[in-house]
Amino acid sequence: MELFTANNIWMMICTALVFFMHLGFAFLEIGLTRQKNTINILFKNIFIITVGLLLYYLVGFNLMYPGDFNGFIGLSGFGLEAPLTETGTLDLSYNEGYTYWTDFLFQGMFAATAATIVSGAVAERIKIGPFMIFTVLYVGLVYPIAGSWKWGEGFLDQLGFYDFAGSTLVHSVGGWAALVAVCLLGARIGKFKDGELQAIPGHNIPIATAGVLILWLGWFGFNGGSVLSADPELTSLTLVTTCLSAAAGGVFSAITSTLMFKNLDLTMFLNGILGGLVGITAGADVMSPTDAIVIGAISGIIIVFAVSFIDKLKLDDPVGAIAVHLVCGIWGTLAVGIFGFKPLTNEAGEFLNADGNVVASALEATNALSFLPQLYGVLAYAAICLVSSFLIIFTLKKTVGIRVSELEELEGLDAYEHGMDAYPDFRLNEH
Amino acid sequence: MELFTANNIWMMICTALVFFMHLGFAFLEIGLTRQKNTINILFKNIFIITVGLLLYYLVGFNLMYPGDFNGFIGLSGFGLEAPLTETGTLDLSYNEGYTYWTDFLFQGMFAATAATIVSGAVAERIKIGPFMIFTVLYVGLVYPIAGSWKWGEGFLDQLGFYDFAGSTLVHSVGGWAALVAVCLLGARIGKFKDGELQAIPGHNIPIATAGVLILWLGWFGFNGGSVLSADPELTSLTLVTTCLSAAAGGVFSAITSTLMFKNLDLTMFLNGILGGLVGITAGADVMSPTDAIVIGAISGIIIVFAVSFIDKLKLDDPVGAIAVHLVCGIWGTLAVGIFGFKPLTNEAGEFLNADGNVVASALEATNALSFLPQLYGVLAYAAICLVSSFLIIFTLKKTVGIRVSELEELEGLDAYEHGMDAYPDFRLNEH
Amino acid sequence: MELFTANNIWMMICTALVFFMHLGFAFLEIGLTRQKNTINILFKNIFIITVGLLLYYLVGFNLMYPGDFNGFIGLSGFGLEAPLTETGTLDLSYNEGYTYWTDFLFQGMFAATAATIVSGAVAERIKIGPFMIFTVLYVGLVYPIAGSWKWGEGFLDQLGFYDFAGSTLVHSVGGWAALVAVCLLGARIGKFKDGELQAIPGHNIPIATAGVLILWLGWFGFNGGSVLSADPELTSLTLVTTCLSAAAGGVFSAITSTLMFKNLDLTMFLNGILGGLVGITAGADVMSPTDAIVIGAISGIIIVFAVSFIDKLKLDDPVGAIAVHLVCGIWGTLAVGIFGFKPLTNEAGEFLNADGNVVASALEATNALSFLPQLYGVLAYAAICLVSSFLIIFTLKKTVGIRVSELEELEGLDAYEHGMDAYPDFRLNEH
Repeated sequence: MELFTANNIWMMICTALVFFMHLGFAFLEIGLTRQKNTINILFKNIFIITVGLLLYYLVGFNLMYPGDFNGFIGLSGFGLEAPLTETGTLDLSYNEGYTYWTDFLFQGMFAATAATIVSGAVAERIKIGPFMIFTVLYVGLVYPIAGSWKWGEGFLDQLGFYDFAGSTLVHSVGGWAALVAVCLLGARIGKFKDGELQAIPGHNIPIATAGVLILWLGWFGFNGGSVLSADPELTSLTLVTTCLSAAAGGVFSAITSTLMFKNLDLTMFLNGILGGLVGITAGADVMSPTDAIVIGAISGIIIVFAVSFIDKLKLDDPVGAIAVHLVCGIWGTLAVGIFGFKPLTNEAGEFLNADGNVVASALEATNALSFLPQLYGVLAYAAICLVSSFLIIFTLKKTVGIRVSELEELEGLDAYEHGMDAYPDFRLNEH
Repeated sequence: MELFTANNIWMMICTALVFFMHLGFAFLEIGLTRQKNTINILFKNIFIITVGLLLYYLVGFNLMYPGDFNGFIGLSGFGLEAPLTETGTLDLSYNEGYTYWTDFLFQGMFAATAATIVSGAVAERIKIGPFMIFTVLYVGLVYPIAGSWKWGEGFLDQLGFYDFAGSTLVHSVGGWAALVAVCLLGARIGKFKDGELQAIPGHNIPIATAGVLILWLGWFGFNGGSVLSADPELTSLTLVTTCLSAAAGGVFSAITSTLMFKNLDLTMFLNGILGGLVGITAGADVMSPTDAIVIGAISGIIIVFAVSFIDKLKLDDPVGAIAVHLVCGIWGTLAVGIFGFKPLTNEAGEFLNADGNVVASALEATNALSFLPQLYGVLAYAAICLVSSFLIIFTLKKTVGIRVSELEELEGLDAYEHGMDAYPDFRLNEH
Repeated sequence: MELFTANNIWMMICTALVFFMHLGFAFLEIGLTRQKNTINILFKNIFIITVGLLLYYLVGFNLMYPGDFNGFIGLSGFGLEAPLTETGTLDLSYNEGYTYWTDFLFQGMFAATAATIVSGAVAERIKIGPFMIFTVLYVGLVYPIAGSWKWGEGFLDQLGFYDFAGSTLVHSVGGWAALVAVCLLGARIGKFKDGELQAIPGHNIPIATAGVLILWLGWFGFNGGSVLSADPELTSLTLVTTCLSAAAGGVFSAITSTLMFKNLDLTMFLNGILGGLVGITAGADVMSPTDAIVIGAISGIIIVFAVSFIDKLKLDDPVGAIAVHLVCGIWGTLAVGIFGFKPLTNEAGEFLNADGNVVASALEATNALSFLPQLYGVLAYAAICLVSSFLIIFTLKKTVGIRVSELEELEGLDAYEHGMDAYPDFRLNEH
């Protein structure tokens, strides 16, 4: 009981920290965009948190953890049905790490994150109504069904796919939809002028920086809570790998971008930190600190090239969500197959197979092939996310339309959709 | 000892979260008012936290928990006197959930909240000196005496009144004083022009939004800590009901205001979240998740009408404190009597009285009448708060005056009372 | 195991809170300086966190806790080498309060703080390259070596020097270097005009205020975690003394500055809170609440005079770092010798020496002389910090130079060093 109480405390704190990430996302997104769309972005973020939680209550939790199911899709009911003991109190044997209520809330806080990632990528030009419809469908249905494939013990779990805290299940799921949305939506007016990239600077960099530090703090809960108990060894190792990867991501992103652009670019530093965090998320509990630094460093380097490449493709992602969440999410997931599962060896350093017999090469040894399940996982999530987000967003585009009018985009969504200014006492520049 | 340590950890974390709510209040209040009064509001908030803690050390804690007393007012001493064992160490048998020190600090963090609620309602026109006097008296004396009636095991506790975490004891106590202060103070210049309501937009909506999310985070500790231990079932249920009510409050407030005003109003969305949080606070530990959603949804709907009604009364409450804290505080307290205590039934669904005998109707069954104690509680707190805050503020008005000069109000309190600007590098609009 | 898990949870949460202090520092520093240098300050802060953690991984942790060593300098290796049991799992007997990983991360979060303190003092005029070199050397080498003298069980620990959570080991270590840097760097252009002090107001006071509240929150972890376990008595007493000292520091600083300058100065109120926090840090676990209030109150009073005195010396410290971290750090360390260790007495109130015999005066009694070790500690840290920071910064000054060009200083470091604006959508004043 004492250990259970301690475990549950840890999980509740992690839940609170993951909740707080929503402020981090909101700050990051408004900071990196223009003031005239600030209310709109905040409204979307608040919508995602509140509606996301209610949807997860209604169906999400039951879709994601359907119990025995076919491995692809299942639903265990509607709403919450807490397991009770004979005397009517909560059955605490539900799990050794947390109560049923904690389980729901921790997972519910994760659910909204996927849509939040999309929110940043489509900022400053998407119609809010269609975005709300997309959110309801993607957070309410796609995210939990996709999640059930691994965390609900579905077919990818059977295949040996590993995703500790969601490099793929959360970040790539958001990232793929962001990619689809950005493609279908087109670039903001003025982003590409005569084919040339024009920088559209974010309007409040202190707020964006705060957003990144809040997200890093939240990741203590995101990864730390994904241990699903307060196991001292695993939770503390996870925090160490998470922080070291974040630090390395930032530093190597800053170095890379400084070498490439001769400029101490704060935004790239920040994105590198986020890349390091996303990159370590899939294997934060199985990496050594040194491996975590390598994974983070590579994430940071990748980010710089990914941002450039996305620009070259003339895709307009105002906050770098695709580079951070999709590209580093994929990298982190594959990195588990590269760094995570060392081939089993005996004391003499010889490789062992699953039966404990010595085999000739690392490839034959147990766990040596774990790269493939990781690749399957990446591809499976690419498939469901690309197809489902395309179906939703394309349908919305062809029916109600997804893009605001040119006039509205130029004058800002805040005035048109919300009738409010974010900073009415300040004199502002138009652009 | 292990369980005690775990309990105490939880209570200390909740204490930290409640402390952090003061940043949430500060952000909300400055965000929803004009830049020219920002320093003044921040100064008041910092004053409340620091002086509030010192007063609670000096007398508050001893007034609120006087031990055996007449049920109306008692004082167990001055300062802190920790219970010691024979060997001079802290007596940990004080409580199973926390040490004496934790108890003091957790309750001390609550104490300042009541004055903070008033701070928002009187913003942009109250003289700071009289406000400081009011704070000292209200936080130092009224709040803890009123609190002793229930949490100090006073007469309302004997009557069966239930207020889990303070819909009434904290939020209404602040809300009633806010109502009195707003009445005695009058509206800001320009708020009602020729009898017509004029919107005075808040100057920094991102900061206000951050304030609401920080408050929501703080409520994890406000409600979660009010369990007074880390009991896994109760704490985790409380967090679930708290979050679902907040989400429902926001969504239903947004829907209601959109239907009424054809506008996606972010401020109303935010106030709805706060209304849902205040509404669930009285019964967060005894509600089902579904009931929590209903209570939150009703809070959200009430907020919209309450804000309109307060406007109609020509009361000027810049941040909506009366609607959020008083109206939803009353609603939440009464909701405990409606949703919270289900009449006792047997397995066949028949109603039972306290002796376990079958009775004919829900009204005769045990707990069925708990609505009345809730009503008594609301009325008792209305009485003490209205009377005491009127006496304090009216006396201040008739002696030193409570309202700044017209010139000062027009030019801003920051320049006059503090000789500082909040944003000296920015070009600002006058209004 | 249950108790160990609970202890480790507490330490991990405290680690997260100390991490969050970096946002507090960043907000405080940018809020109290001008908008044109905001990106630069944020970049420095992000650099310190990320590089600080990586350096602490590489050498810092091994320099600070070298195991058996000569008491002055030792190194136990490079990188992290977790203690393992025979079966290859983490050896949890490492410490009763935390795992090896938690230990590293908690201490790593402290490490970067020293450089952050310097960052504020040198803001708005230091070249970023040399600052980065300084950070690497000071955080990577000086801080951990100096720290080993006490927390690594070096010679000062043997002398009976006491510094619970780092009034000296963290805050003074930063403060001394800030003093040296400010002397070598000179004042900002315009700070002293014809020998007269000119106020250079901070550009975003709400952000600065938020910074202080975030730092206060972080101090729950900074001091609370320095208990190095979740011991209920010590942790909760520590939080009480910390919060009361902060409150008293703020209130007495506000009173003092109001009496002296006839102005309700929010910045001084905030600095008083920080002074109270720094002041209590050396003895937060051994003070009574009343002593904590006295220590905080004196810190608050000291701050006001220290700021004036530093101005008189024509030293330009934009954020008051020297007054807060150095002056209050010294005061807090000495206060342990004054308030902390009461002379041992018997039940009749007679003084006792170490052998338990009655002696005539408090001076002869055990612990009565503990002021001297505190003074030794202060002097020892003054020596290592003044010498090392002078050597580093003076060398940098004479080689690459440490100060930006006059043109760059006037136009802002953001444009020159980073090619970015913090607030591109806002119209700004030049100064």
